This record gives sequence, C-alpha cells and structure tokens, in this order.
Amino acid sequence: MDKHAQTGWLSKLVTRRSVLATSTVGLAVPAAMTLGTGASGVHTAQAQTGVVKKITMYVEDLPGGLLGYGLEPGKASIPGPLLEIYEGDTLEITLVNRTTQRVSIHPHGVDYSVESDGSPLNASFNGPGETRVYTWRSREMTSAGVGRLFTPGSAGYWHYHDHANGTDHGTGGLAKGLYGGLIVRRRGDALPVKTFVAVLNDTMINHKKAPNTPMFECNLGERVEWLAIGHANSLHTFHLHAHRWADNRTGYLEGPADPSAIIDIKDLNPGTSFGFQVIAGQGVGPGAWMYHCHVQSHSDTGMAGIFLVRNADGSMPPGAQEAIDRFHGHVHAAGPAVDVPPPASTEGHSHN
Amino acid sequence: MDKHAQTGWLSKLVTRRSVLATSTVGLAVPAAMTLGTGASGVHTAQAQTGVVKKITMYVEDLPGGLLGYGLEPGKASIPGPLLEIYEGDTLEITLVNRTTQRVSIHPHGVDYSVESDGSPLNASFNGPGETRVYTWRSREMTSAGVGRLFTPGSAGYWHYHDHANGTDHGTGGLAKGLYGGLIVRRRGDALPVKTFVAVLNDTMINHKKAPNTPMFECNLGERVEWLAIGHANSLHTFHLHAHRWADNRTGYLEGPADPSAIIDIKDLNPGTSFGFQVIAGQGVGPGAWMYHCHVQSHSDTGMAGIFLVRNADGSMPPGAQEAIDRFHGHVHAAGPAVDVPPPASTEGHSHN
Amino acid sequence: MDKHAQTGWLSKLVTRRSVLATSTVGLAVPAAMTLGTGASGVHTAQAQTGVVKKITMYVEDLPGGLLGYGLEPGKASIPGPLLEIYEGDTLEITLVNRTTQRVSIHPHGVDYSVESDGSPLNASFNGPGETRVYTWRSREMTSAGVGRLFTPGSAGYWHYHDHANGTDHGTGGLAKGLYGGLIVRRRGDALPVKTFVAVLNDTMINHKKAPNTPMFECNLGERVEWLAIGHANSLHTFHLHAHRWADNRTGYLEGPADPSAIIDIKDLNPGTSFGFQVIAGQGVGPGAWMYHCHVQSHSDTGMAGIFLVRNADGSMPPGAQEAIDRFHGHVHAAGPAVDVPPPASTEGHSHN
Repeated sequence: MDKHAQTGWLSKLVTRRSVLATSTVGLAVPAAMTLGTGASGVHTAQAQTGVVKKITMYVEDLPGGLLGYGLEPGKASIPGPLLEIYEGDTLEITLVNRTTQRVSIHPHGVDYSVESDGSPLNASFNGPGETRVYTWRSREMTSAGVGRLFTPGSAGYWHYHDHANGTDHGTGGLAKGLYGGLIVRRRGDALPVKTFVAVLNDTMINHKKAPNTPMFECNLGERVEWLAIGHANSLHTFHLHAHRWADNRTGYLEGPADPSAIIDIKDLNPGTSFGFQVIAGQGVGPGAWMYHCHVQSHSDTGMAGIFLVRNADGSMPPGAQEAIDRFHGHVHAAGPAVDVPPPASTEGHSHN
Repeated sequence: MDKHAQTGWLSKLVTRRSVLATSTVGLAVPAAMTLGTGASGVHTAQAQTGVVKKITMYVEDLPGGLLGYGLEPGKASIPGPLLEIYEGDTLEITLVNRTTQRVSIHPHGVDYSVESDGSPLNASFNGPGETRVYTWRSREMTSAGVGRLFTPGSAGYWHYHDHANGTDHGTGGLAKGLYGGLIVRRRGDALPVKTFVAVLNDTMINHKKAPNTPMFECNLGERVEWLAIGHANSLHTFHLHAHRWADNRTGYLEGPADPSAIIDIKDLNPGTSFGFQVIAGQGVGPGAWMYHCHVQSHSDTGMAGIFLVRNADGSMPPGAQEAIDRFHGHVHAAGPAVDVPPPASTEGHSHN
Repeated sequence: MDKHAQTGWLSKLVTRRSVLATSTVGLAVPAAMTLGTGASGVHTAQAQTGVVKKITMYVEDLPGGLLGYGLEPGKASIPGPLLEIYEGDTLEITLVNRTTQRVSIHPHGVDYSVESDGSPLNASFNGPGETRVYTWRSREMTSAGVGRLFTPGSAGYWHYHDHANGTDHGTGGLAKGLYGGLIVRRRGDALPVKTFVAVLNDTMINHKKAPNTPMFECNLGERVEWLAIGHANSLHTFHLHAHRWADNRTGYLEGPADPSAIIDIKDLNPGTSFGFQVIAGQGVGPGAWMYHCHVQSHSDTGMAGIFLVRNADGSMPPGAQEAIDRFHGHVHAAGPAVDVPPPASTEGHSHN
C-alpha cells in the first residue's frame, strides 16, 4: 500500500462497516446510520434523521512547513480527513489549533451562521493556539413555494478548507495543505465500498507530484467513489481512463430519461468539486488505469496517478505491476519519448 | 447604500412593482406583464405573449476613459442596465452612440438577424455619433420534430456587450465597461424581489476592486436573484458563502427527481453567464456574507464583495457592521494575516 | 469550398446516405445501420445491435512537421476523420504508423482494455513503423442495481488523440495534429445532415488561425451538428452566434420538464468535448455567423471562424459574401478599429 495514497486511510474510514466520520472517531452520540441492503444486495444510505455529530479536529504543523487537519492529535494529513454526513445532520466541529498561526475551517455546501463562516470577515477563525467550535448544518430539499419547484438540499460532493491563513481568503492555508473532502448523502443514495479524494491544488495532486501521487486501489467490480476538488489558481481538467459518469449530482443516470451528459473528464477549477461512483473495471477489466489533469503541461509535470483495479480476488492483474514500475520512470517532461527504467530506489512506494 | 453597488439601481429597476425594463423607461407600449400571485403568495412570471418593447439605449463616455450603456442620456453605468423580457417578446433597441468611438451591442441567448449581430463581421455597429436599431427576438421551446425532443426556448440568464470597440471582438469595449445583464423569463418562473448582477471582468467585479466592489443588500427571507457574467481573458469561479443552488436553468430543482448537481460555486469564464435565486439567509440567518472569485490570486487582489442580508425588518444584524468595517481594511494581498483597522476615509461608501 | 474547412470532408463523410465511419471506408462487414424516417420526416438513429466495425487508420507525416490520422494512406488530415458508432458497437482499429516516431490512439468515452489504452503506462503504443490493433467497445445504459439508477451508456460527443508522442501524455502528438472526433449515438437520437468538428487546441482552431479557420457551410433549416473539442493548455469558451442549445447530452430538451440550462457558449478546456445540434438559422435567418473562442485575447489573435448559413436553396444570402471578404481583412489584433479591405489574394479560399 502506497503511503502517499489516501486509499488506505479512506478504506479504513469509509467501508461498509464504517461509512461516516462519526463512526470512526468514537463519538458518544448514537451511531448515525444503519445500512440498508436492497434486493440487489447493494447498500444504500439509510440514516436516523437530524443527528448531531460532534467531532474534534486538530490543525497541526507537518514537515516542510506544511499544515494538516486531523481527527486525533498527531494524525494530521493532507488532504484532511474525509467527512461524511446525511442530509439533515449537524456536524459540530471543535477545531483545536495546535500551531502558532491563524487558521480556520470553511465548508462548502452546508449551512452555517456567520460565527461558523471560517472567514476573518466575520471574525470567525482560530488565533494561534486557540480552540473554536464551528457548526455545520444540513437539510433535505424543501418546496420552493412556486409550482413544483424545490429549494435544493445539502446533498453533494463538497469540501472544506482554511479561509484565514496567509490572507483573508486562506491562500496560505491552501498552499500548506489545509483542505479536505466533505460528502453529504441523501437517503437512498448508493454507498460505495471506498471513496478516493483527489485534490488538484496548484500543480500537485494531494500535495504530491508523480510518481508520488496517490495510487488508489480496489478490486474489480467494487463500487468506488471519487471526490475531486480543485484549489489555488490554475485551470484543471480531471480525467479518469476507461471509466465514465453522468454529469449530475451522483454520477448515475436517475432513470432512462435523465438528460445529463455522460463524461470521463470535467473541469476542476479553484474552489469547485464534484464526485461520482463507478464500478471498478466495468466493461474494461482490471489494470493500472491512469487518472490525471488533462492540461498537458500539468500532466507532463506530475499531475497524474494510478487507479489500480486488481482482479476480483485481490490478486494483481497481468501487466499491472509492470505499469506501476514504469510509472516510476514515467516521462513527465517533454524529454525523449522512450521508456526509461524505473529509478533504483522506489522510495516510499511499496507494492503488494 | 454603496454608490458603487448595483443593488440600489436594480432594486429600483427590478421590484415586484416594476419587473421589466419596459416598466422602468415609461414606454408608450402597453405594460408587458401582469404579476400573478399563487396560493403561496409568491409572484410568478405571467405575461402577455409576443410583446414588442422599444427602448433607447445610450453609449456614453464615463470618467477615466470608460464607457457605459444607459437607458437615459447622462445615466450610463457599469454594468449597463439589466434588461428583462419574457420568452416570445421582442426587444427593439435604438442604440445612440454619444461617443467618438465605434461601438455596438451584441446579445447572448436571443434571436437576431445579421443586421443586429453587433459585429463588424456583419457591418453591424454604430460609427462615432451614429444611431442604429438592434432587434432581439425570443421564443418559447418548440417540438424538435424528433421523439419527445424540444428545441430550446430563449429563457436564460444572459448578457449583452460591445462587439466592435477596440477590436472586431469588442475587447476595447469590454475593458471600458460596455456590458450588462439580460434575463429572458419563462412564463411561470418565480420572480425575485431583487436581482444582483456581478460581472467578473479581468480582475474586477463590475469594474471595481475590493473594498469598492458592490455591496448587495436585502432582507432575511427575501427571494433574491443573482446573475453572474464572465468577461475578458481569465479563469474565474464565482462563490457565494452560505447559499447554494441547483446547477440548471433556474437554480431550483424542477421536482424531487431533478438530477442536477447542487453547487455553491461555478466556473465563470469569458463570455459565459448563469443565474439563480436564493432565499436570503435561508437556514443560515442574516449577516455579511462574502461573494468572491475562488481563484486565490483573484480574491486576494480584490475580486470579493459583501452580500448583506439584513434582519427581516431591515435592521442591521449583530456583527454585520463590524464585518463591513473590517472589509474596508480587508487583507487582500498576501501580507500580514492580521486584522488592520479600516482606512480613515470610507470614501464613497456609507452604511445605513 | 474552403480547402481549410472540415465541412467538405465531413459533408462527404457524414450525410444522410453515409452516416457512420463504416459506411465511408467500404468495409466487408454488413452496413451497420438503417435510417428510420419518422412521421415528421426526420431521420433518427436506428442500428443493428452490437456490430463489430473494423477500420484501418494511418498516422502520417504532414508538411511543417505535423502529423495526422487518416482512413486511407495519403489522406491524413487535421483533425483526423470523424468516427461514429452506435451504443453497443465495437470499433476495431488497425493503426498503421507510417512515421518514425512513437504514436498511439487513445479514445474518450468508450470501453477498452489496458492493451488498447493508447498510453505508454500500459505499453500501448505504436513504435516507429509499427502496426497495432486498438479495440474500442461501447454499451447501452444498464441498471445500477440501486433504486432506479442507471450506469451511463457510451453515447456522447467524444474524441480521440495521441497519448504517446513527445511525452507519455501525447503532448507532442497534440501539438502536431493527432486528434479527432468520436461520436457514439444512442438509438433514437436525431441524425444531423452534417457534423462540424471544431478543435480548440492551443490558440488555433483545427490547427488554423483566422482567417484560415474552417468555414462551416450549410443551408437554412438544415439540422447540423457541432462537436467541439479542447486540447493543450489554455482556457477556452466556445461561442456560436445566433444559435443556442441545451447544456445536456444532446443539446435538445428531453421534454418540456428538462431542467437543463440553455446556453450559446460553453467552457472547452483541455481534454473536454461536447456536442449539440441546431437547425441552421432557425429564428435568425441565413448569413455569415461567427463562431469563436470568447477569451478576448484568443478571438483577437485568430480563434474565430464563419458558420455560413446559405439560403434554403443553397444560394448566397444578402451580405454574406461581403462578410466573408471582410473576415479576410478582419482586425484580429488590438489595432485600429476600422474595417480594412481584404487582402488582394484570398489564397486557398474560394467562395461559391
């Protein structure tokens, strides 16, 4: 398992047995959800309504002048922990700032009052060493009071980030690693086996460049979920080889008349996010599939990684190990277009 | 009321009593619309079909070498007046060029023949001092003659701009301020109390940088509408704090099965536009909410403003005035991340 | 007919009599489709299910160090041939590399195993002079096994490109011209009379700058299709004057309740693509309509072209020839904003 990959972290956090953030941090509140299993054997989101989940998050210094969010002291990561709730839930975050810098946490997609805005504009931040509570609420769609219109609920593939470090817009915090994923599920949504979070920030993915970008791993036929987030200043387009999804809320067509375009690439510009689920290797088989930014100068300089779809039994498919080894010798700059051997050291990257 | 804000201008132009451009310029043609009030008390768009609205617009010099469109002589503004029609209406614009430069007006979303294209390609422009009539038509959706498909109607959040000044693509006109909003409503659409127009052009919003960007104001619970327009050469992503909308034609879900993604940020690149309505402060309360471009180098250098949601009775919510004052001392560049006092002079910006 | 235009090439390839790639290359396999004609007289896509189409494509050197794909030796073009299949079909491409460089072909939107990935990561490319078979499969939507959700089918406006020349991401191949359009149709989709392919690559359209960009031609009232593709490193927004479409899979509204936004411009960033159909001149009449990138510095420096809608009988509408002539003297840079006469030589461009 690649130590750089979010996969390991996420596969522990997000499995059929522990889907939501609350489950993983041992809160005193009752477990928020039960997992329904339909006739098809697929797990779907079922949850008690309006649960208040209380978690503590820590902002900590990381090597190289970086910063990270973590759910326990000493566990900060980049990106920070994936947070998941159901529409109707409230997330009460006690943010402990263990650094000497001003930081905050600002979410997309959920409801919060000005006190929890996470912006210096509203004096909503943690000074050095300070602890502050941020409350995020969510809701289901409601009638808009006009015809058959509905005001949108909170369900979506969202994210959170610092909004106070370096500048009043958190530019320093983003550059140092203060960002993470946030998913709000609607009851009845399909639940994935794993969720992969890919943050295209500046010219890095999850603060890494190829070949040190995360290798996201799963088995053939597993329902896996991607959450893609853009940050910083540059244009990005997120492309996944050999898989595609509907350009709508879930990535699935909501019935045969759903007019959504089908895509395998989507713009991922600063502050935006989207997500989707795919059945790993469906129609294409297992293998080392590439995900990358399709801006050529970005993929050439390291905005690419591997989505490893193993065989259904978890074994390595033919050619995949060779592809992974090749990736470590990947020609990322406009050099000679020939295969070069992988470096003698594959430091930090071990393959099962 | 901020003299730089469109709010004041728009709240006069676009209220329940005077929704459409025609209403505000006292035309001889009969009032184009009546306002229906449903059981819910919400106003929806009802209109006489196929009205021809005749207006005169003026292109005028503004201080600093800028140019603006206006509905009366001496009233040019940046952005120009918000124009609104219903699907089926025709807008006949007599454009009076009171400058010594070549200018035109080119719309998005509506129908026009080559004579009204507004492009030098079709010799459709006003020479210095010239007057020219541009006719924009609109239509409802019609059967496409294939299955249950329909050819789209004109309803949308559109815009207009110069296409002849400086270059054959109007690059000079855009740089000088020749742009504005255009909304084509479908009968039955919900009508807002106010419409805010935010044009992200180069590194400015409505030709201003923070803290001089417009402060858009309304009261808690009001149905307000945003029309966001992108121009010039740069990547932009428009983000509104604490509010969200459906990524479709109206921003509302068109029933519970509408598959549209829910968003609180959207790409806003040159020539594109979108709009949506929100209930101000719904689920989050009143306050000084930020809207900004989420490209960090853009927000840091002034592409940010305040969406002030007052209490329902119009009074100032706690903390809002402090936030506004703070905004005037907002750290926009990557300087010391501390709150600095507002400048002694809040020139041009008075708060109620 | 402009020799630079794809129109001529496409109008031969894509007509009511020869809609799919297979039809144009005289394969031994049975004709894949029949054309249904509904009561409305409109042709819709009807096709035998699961046809295997075998074609040979050639990569060849072109003048100026460029490269192209072609369906016959000596016929390489930029963009390469438009490929079209129906959902369920398989396209088996024997790619003959007639150059001394490493090249490949990588598709978007369809299914392929790692051997046909077209990426050096999976050792899927043609060395100098090599021939290699790439197999692309497609499928219809299928139940996702969750509620009423469907896993998307392959239908879409896609594209293919080199993924091995210059760098492991095909940056050299894209810069030299190795790209083309791919359309996967769903049975029942409306069939166009013509398809226009516009590739915004770097600061060129189909490797040309104005006034040498393609002039796409048709007659008033014809159902024509656009396939727009983005490549390289820059932000683009594709705008078509006087026509608009729904921002969904087909460009049509799929019934009156389709919530899709209506647009006349759309972001077209590296690796992305979209398509739509319009009735040429519907509601606006014939004429020389402009299509262009709306990034001002791009349109000003040549990312613009003409969509010529002739009269229904094929004759030239009033003013159109003048507009075309004017285009050849088009002011593309920020120079004097006056009409200049067309160059004495309209080299390579003859008008009917």
